[in-house]
Amino acid sequence: MRDLTPLFDPRSVAVVGASADRAKWGYSVSEQLLSLPSGRDIYLVNRRGGDILGRTAFRNLADLPAPVDLVAICVPASGFLDAVRDSLAAGARALVAITAGLGEADAEGEKIEREAVALVRSAGAVLVGPNCLGVTDSSTGLRLASDPFRPGDVAVLSQSGNMVLDLEALMADEGLEIEDHISRFVSLGNQADVAVTDFMLDCVGHDATHAVAIYAEDVMDGRAFVQAARALAEAGKPVVLLAPGSSDAGRRGAASHTGSLTSADNVIDAACTASGIHRVHTPLQMVDALVALRQPFRAASGRVGILTDGGGHGSVAADSLHRVGLDVPLLSAELGVKLSRSLWSQSSVSNPVDLAGIGEQDPLSYARGLRTLLDSDEVAAVLLTGYFGGYAQTNEALAGPEIRAGEQIADIVRTAGKPVVVHTIFPESDSIAVLRGAGVPVHRDVGRAAAALAMLVETDVQVRSDPIDLPPSGRPTPSVDYVAARSALSDAGIAFPRSAIVKSEQDLDDLLSSAVVGFPRRPTPSVDYVAARSALSDAGIAFPRSAIVKSEQDLDDLLSSAAIGFPLVMKAMGLLHKSDAGGVVLDIADEVRARAVFADLVRRLQPSVVSVEQMVDHEGAVEVIVGSTWDPRFGPVLMVGLGGVLAEVMEDVAFALAPVTHATASRLLHSLRGAPLLTGVRGRAPIDMSALVDVVVAVSEAASRHPDWVEVEVNPVIATPTGAVAVDARIIPAQRNSL
Amino acid sequence: MRDLTPLFDPRSVAVVGASADRAKWGYSVSEQLLSLPSGRDIYLVNRRGGDILGRTAFRNLADLPAPVDLVAICVPASGFLDAVRDSLAAGARALVAITAGLGEADAEGEKIEREAVALVRSAGAVLVGPNCLGVTDSSTGLRLASDPFRPGDVAVLSQSGNMVLDLEALMADEGLEIEDHISRFVSLGNQADVAVTDFMLDCVGHDATHAVAIYAEDVMDGRAFVQAARALAEAGKPVVLLAPGSSDAGRRGAASHTGSLTSADNVIDAACTASGIHRVHTPLQMVDALVALRQPFRAASGRVGILTDGGGHGSVAADSLHRVGLDVPLLSAELGVKLSRSLWSQSSVSNPVDLAGIGEQDPLSYARGLRTLLDSDEVAAVLLTGYFGGYAQTNEALAGPEIRAGEQIADIVRTAGKPVVVHTIFPESDSIAVLRGAGVPVHRDVGRAAAALAMLVETDVQVRSDPIDLPPSGRPTPSVDYVAARSALSDAGIAFPRSAIVKSEQDLDDLLSSAVVGFPRRPTPSVDYVAARSALSDAGIAFPRSAIVKSEQDLDDLLSSAAIGFPLVMKAMGLLHKSDAGGVVLDIADEVRARAVFADLVRRLQPSVVSVEQMVDHEGAVEVIVGSTWDPRFGPVLMVGLGGVLAEVMEDVAFALAPVTHATASRLLHSLRGAPLLTGVRGRAPIDMSALVDVVVAVSEAASRHPDWVEVEVNPVIATPTGAVAVDARIIPAQRNSL
Repeated sequence: MRDLTPLFDPRSVAVVGASADRAKWGYSVSEQLLSLPSGRDIYLVNRRGGDILGRTAFRNLADLPAPVDLVAICVPASGFLDAVRDSLAAGARALVAITAGLGEADAEGEKIEREAVALVRSAGAVLVGPNCLGVTDSSTGLRLASDPFRPGDVAVLSQSGNMVLDLEALMADEGLEIEDHISRFVSLGNQADVAVTDFMLDCVGHDATHAVAIYAEDVMDGRAFVQAARALAEAGKPVVLLAPGSSDAGRRGAASHTGSLTSADNVIDAACTASGIHRVHTPLQMVDALVALRQPFRAASGRVGILTDGGGHGSVAADSLHRVGLDVPLLSAELGVKLSRSLWSQSSVSNPVDLAGIGEQDPLSYARGLRTLLDSDEVAAVLLTGYFGGYAQTNEALAGPEIRAGEQIADIVRTAGKPVVVHTIFPESDSIAVLRGAGVPVHRDVGRAAAALAMLVETDVQVRSDPIDLPPSGRPTPSVDYVAARSALSDAGIAFPRSAIVKSEQDLDDLLSSAVVGFPRRPTPSVDYVAARSALSDAGIAFPRSAIVKSEQDLDDLLSSAAIGFPLVMKAMGLLHKSDAGGVVLDIADEVRARAVFADLVRRLQPSVVSVEQMVDHEGAVEVIVGSTWDPRFGPVLMVGLGGVLAEVMEDVAFALAPVTHATASRLLHSLRGAPLLTGVRGRAPIDMSALVDVVVAVSEAASRHPDWVEVEVNPVIATPTGAVAVDARIIPAQRNSL
Repeated sequence: MRDLTPLFDPRSVAVVGASADRAKWGYSVSEQLLSLPSGRDIYLVNRRGGDILGRTAFRNLADLPAPVDLVAICVPASGFLDAVRDSLAAGARALVAITAGLGEADAEGEKIEREAVALVRSAGAVLVGPNCLGVTDSSTGLRLASDPFRPGDVAVLSQSGNMVLDLEALMADEGLEIEDHISRFVSLGNQADVAVTDFMLDCVGHDATHAVAIYAEDVMDGRAFVQAARALAEAGKPVVLLAPGSSDAGRRGAASHTGSLTSADNVIDAACTASGIHRVHTPLQMVDALVALRQPFRAASGRVGILTDGGGHGSVAADSLHRVGLDVPLLSAELGVKLSRSLWSQSSVSNPVDLAGIGEQDPLSYARGLRTLLDSDEVAAVLLTGYFGGYAQTNEALAGPEIRAGEQIADIVRTAGKPVVVHTIFPESDSIAVLRGAGVPVHRDVGRAAAALAMLVETDVQVRSDPIDLPPSGRPTPSVDYVAARSALSDAGIAFPRSAIVKSEQDLDDLLSSAVVGFPRRPTPSVDYVAARSALSDAGIAFPRSAIVKSEQDLDDLLSSAAIGFPLVMKAMGLLHKSDAGGVVLDIADEVRARAVFADLVRRLQPSVVSVEQMVDHEGAVEVIVGSTWDPRFGPVLMVGLGGVLAEVMEDVAFALAPVTHATASRLLHSLRGAPLLTGVRGRAPIDMSALVDVVVAVSEAASRHPDWVEVEVNPVIATPTGAVAVDARIIPAQRNSL
């Protein structure tokens, strides 16, 4: 773990490239730095000297009267490397590099950036950026950015400055109180040295930080990111992540914005599941998540009670909860009777619970209804929706009772320890202020209230016990894989030779006949079926009995040994398109037929060898696909799905970071829309889940041991009521970047 | 069409049940009525007379000095029928029945309600409610509700009073200007006489109304509702519908709130598609839709350009648009060059278009970029996202240019005739005010901005040419079908005998073995396969050649006639569970086997008859399910989906109001996730879409002619590259309500 003390709590700070010109960063950073009395020594450095913000500027870092802890570098790219050298010579242990036009701009800039990082690291210092907007820490009074941020307890780590302005404005608008803003702000920039993960780890022990909000287009070392998020979760500090790139255009935007390599959406989701990160998609969702997560209660399940005084609001709230995946269960008759007693006879008690008018007679009925709901074990949370907050306005006599109701509700929430979220037409009312004051999340829009509740359902902590560490050789490096880099850079407008990714013989065949890529062409290597089967068998995955046959003599030996029972399958190997060429023959029932098929294969196709296999019984079978792709940031990402053409068209697949435990493998399989086919539907026998889970775990483990596999796919696995057998497999080995 | 003039523009108004007690509706309605000088004669009636709001109350309607046009009835349920009689006697041509505790409460109330409606209709008058909160019309100055509403051009028709309060408060908060509120408000109540559709039709010719917002738990006559919405769409008046019930709990809430029968979610969606209604799910979405739809431009496709000065905002906006189903296409090189010229070389021009800093040098660059985007035919709309609105704040010198940019943007939008929606961090700034003033929708949250744009994509107007009228006998009536009513009332806590719905022999078998329903039981009739096949064949749907065989002699005659070619299928009819009992035998290859199978079926199963059919060739086949269910509100609703167990598990189905045109049938089939299976995937031959579309249209037409069919299902239809043949079918006839 890097020591970030000199960065967040330096004894002295210098700004190199300080300026009196208001349009320059060197001005705004200096102005912010000086705006708060901190007891720190502050030095402004400008090679022309002169007066800046009422201070005489030093011409060189070497002129400073004492060593300096932290230097902010605001000079142009051409002077960057000198400024880094001078800073280290002046004793700097932390550098904040505002300078842009380096790694994000071109190869020359990247070279300078690498050189600077080498200097910084060998001096034992740390560097933020370059191409960043600065750093603040409200717990130490450090303001080293162009904007002041209101102090609070959320650490904001961001690759976009505008996104933080958006976020802070929303925090002010949307319910976070003035004391609940930003504990630390870090503009991540190019993350050339210190990256988002380092800041996350530092926040684990930062007392002033109670939650971490991240805008990241590129999380760099994905496994370290997940570890850091787990550490924050264990420290009780929620992490909320806004990571763009769920669309092609979003990824394109990120690539041209920061040159970032965004991981695929399902990979980010898998990482969030593995670490308890709350993922959001807009700044507003991020603020809503922070508001929800700052109250201490979580729902043990997705079962929500709705309490309202107005049937319309109850119905609309129920639909909103349904849309975010929550459940509004029908309540038991016993609970209904209790609710009727605490409300009145007209009240509807089936859930939504509708006071049906008792609210305007007696606002305290809300508190009684809420207590009855929360005391039962039939709901894990309550959404209060609609008119509460408005009674005093229509009838002054209700002002006192409504506030008392608010106080009672706040008490009940505390005692019950279950989350309550409020939607109200009257967010500015006194009784609602009581609820807000007690930390109850309040929303004007029922859709946002429902989404906030969804954020509070406890995630499956069990998955956090999945292994995350990979063998040292298997750690993905922040450097970008060739294909991914080419794709990101092409999107950003950089020309590459015509190319195509070929994953199967069929793909290659299609490509060759399409003439998209002219000759000469450079092929992608691929491991052939026999080798893939062998590697995966070694990993514990069951394949049918099989043998390699090269000659009629081999076949005779095999048949006389009876090592493989009939019916057989024969596959001619070493062909570009074995299926289309008739190179796979199923259901070979006897020796005569076997000899005939072999002779025919040899005559027609001249295969290198023929694989003879026992044909798998398809009785009651479901075809399953299990694979793993090596993500350049997150390493091996497991994919499971139902196989066959229909399932493929439906894209019914689920992802997790590999390797996975048996529990996670089982969860993934059950999360498929088509899961009923596995567990038994329309009277079908359930397939042997334990065997199938074993295959999934084995593939995930094999993939994790093999950074040299870009992709492994076992497809199909024939899952039956009595077992799970792989009948085809493919491995695509890593290709060295040969740009 | 009902004449609603006496309701919305009466010459005189009386309130029966007027009260001096501020807690009573008779007070608030009277107070509102008197609050606006309207030149109308206003009479307050209270059987005890006395002084109310400074006026002497009449003791009886009979005492009024002149006939009265409109009477608001605020008396308790017990006095309701007398008040109706007195009102009609006093000359009333319109009644607003505030009185609650009638049809929504119990059978006795429903009887009173029916009697009142009969009186009103025979007098040629109209009645709103009962159980309603009143009516207002800002164009005639009529205020007959408990709350005043700000005048505007949106007609609000609602089954919930609180929902309208919510909506109006949001209109004030969220961007609708003060003059853009409510033209008419109608609290629909029980819709015993005048229903939502009548008010919609009246709004077609109401000059002050430019859009119609509906909160409806029950739209009553669904076909009339669709017709009315089409009429409004043709008049250029958008309709926005908030209809709860997309979840079980939402339907339960509606049932206990207004006793409403909510139609299934997919039925409501089908009705909205058929009529161009914009469906929303929360009050906030409704206000956003109204704001978006009041500007005149629509997007001809879902292709959106993003313009931003900040890569993070561009990426997040792209993801947000993707999530609402819009497309952010990569722009052509030609357009990229043009954009580069109007911006600067650093700008990213691939879409998202990122000014990359030129905005803070020159805010007019926004206008140039926007013009270049909108002038091209590569995008149909633009989302402007992020920092615009904030330049003047950081640099006063930019205040003038930023406002000029706003003015230019407003001009460009007008000229281009394409919609532009804005997301900004600075919604209160002067330049944003210019955009708002020009009618450009502005949002603080990018998620809402994206959703607003999605609302502006032109819907397929072609579907509005689908027939909506049903044969007179086929019109669904507002009265509730037994099964639906039982379900709604059970959910609301009313006890019914144990029951189960049985749709197939298998269902019945399951039920009988489960012992859920004890004996004696009353069965649901069902039309047998042979009769269903005959009805559907008559409707033009192709079945395999077939013949009914009752004896060996029949079979001999059939075989010697060679009317049906081999292979054959035999189905033993008249059995409870023909498949399980081995009553269906496939692939009968010759006469010997045919005779043997027939003899065996007769011996084992004693079927009433045996259906002998030509076996359908499954080569290249996809199984499709086509059916229709009779919705109690909307009549026949067509369903198409892919058949087979996997497709069933995936719930890959699409719905439309029946009957449908060939165009709609084709659209439905193509909308299935599994559509690639129909159109050819992985080298499969495409199936004969024309034949399949014919089957879908024929089923939809047959269903529409048969209100006596609760459900018809043709499953499977075997769709192949050369045709589409039905091989099984079932019809469930209507069951008279026999409670």
